[in-house]
Amino acid sequence: MTATLLAIFTRPEGGEDALDELMTRYLDEHMPLIEMVPGLRSSVVEKVAQHYAGEDLVIVTRMEFDDSEALQVGMASDEMKVAGRNLRDIAPGLLTLVALDEDPVS
Amino acid sequence: MTATLLAIFTRPEGGEDALDELMTRYLDEHMPLIEMVPGLRSSVVEKVAQHYAGEDLVIVTRMEFDDSEALQVGMASDEMKVAGRNLRDIAPGLLTLVALDEDPVS
Repeated sequence: MTATLLAIFTRPEGGEDALDELMTRYLDEHMPLIEMVPGLRSSVVEKVAQHYAGEDLVIVTRMEFDDSEALQVGMASDEMKVAGRNLRDIAPGLLTLVALDEDPVS
Repeated sequence: MTATLLAIFTRPEGGEDALDELMTRYLDEHMPLIEMVPGLRSSVVEKVAQHYAGEDLVIVTRMEFDDSEALQVGMASDEMKVAGRNLRDIAPGLLTLVALDEDPVS
């Protein structure tokens, strides 16, 4: 079972233009930096199509590592620090980032 | 490509006991109700292992439907209404619920 890093983003202020700019910079600038993180096996970026309850999310990204040790090494890497600085520039205050247990509960 | 319903939950007040009770009731009461929703193909419940930034999430659940139309039918179903009432009892104010685009962006 791989270990998963989950990044979710709330809607930026500034309407559709701000969301378009976030999405463009996220895909063109940020994800190439993420792909340089050591140990990353794969990543999937998904857009929110509809909001039903709670936080107004706009992007959900899953990043898979071989195991939780590989995920921790990746989190501590210089490449992740560079990606983190980029994210604070393009999506300030919008990010929630968590690691998921290697085995699903059900 | 299937359509995905994503449910995420923030940490309940009341420490580890409250989290244990939420997890038990979520798995024992809520997920069996979700599994009765028409059109649901599969579901995966994941626990948060570590929190790095933003909201203090504890549970992430993906529910897959055949397509966005099937997801909308499921959301409008009586079975989903029953599941929703149950959730307001066991996890009041903790839920964010969104549908994801059928095709990942990248």
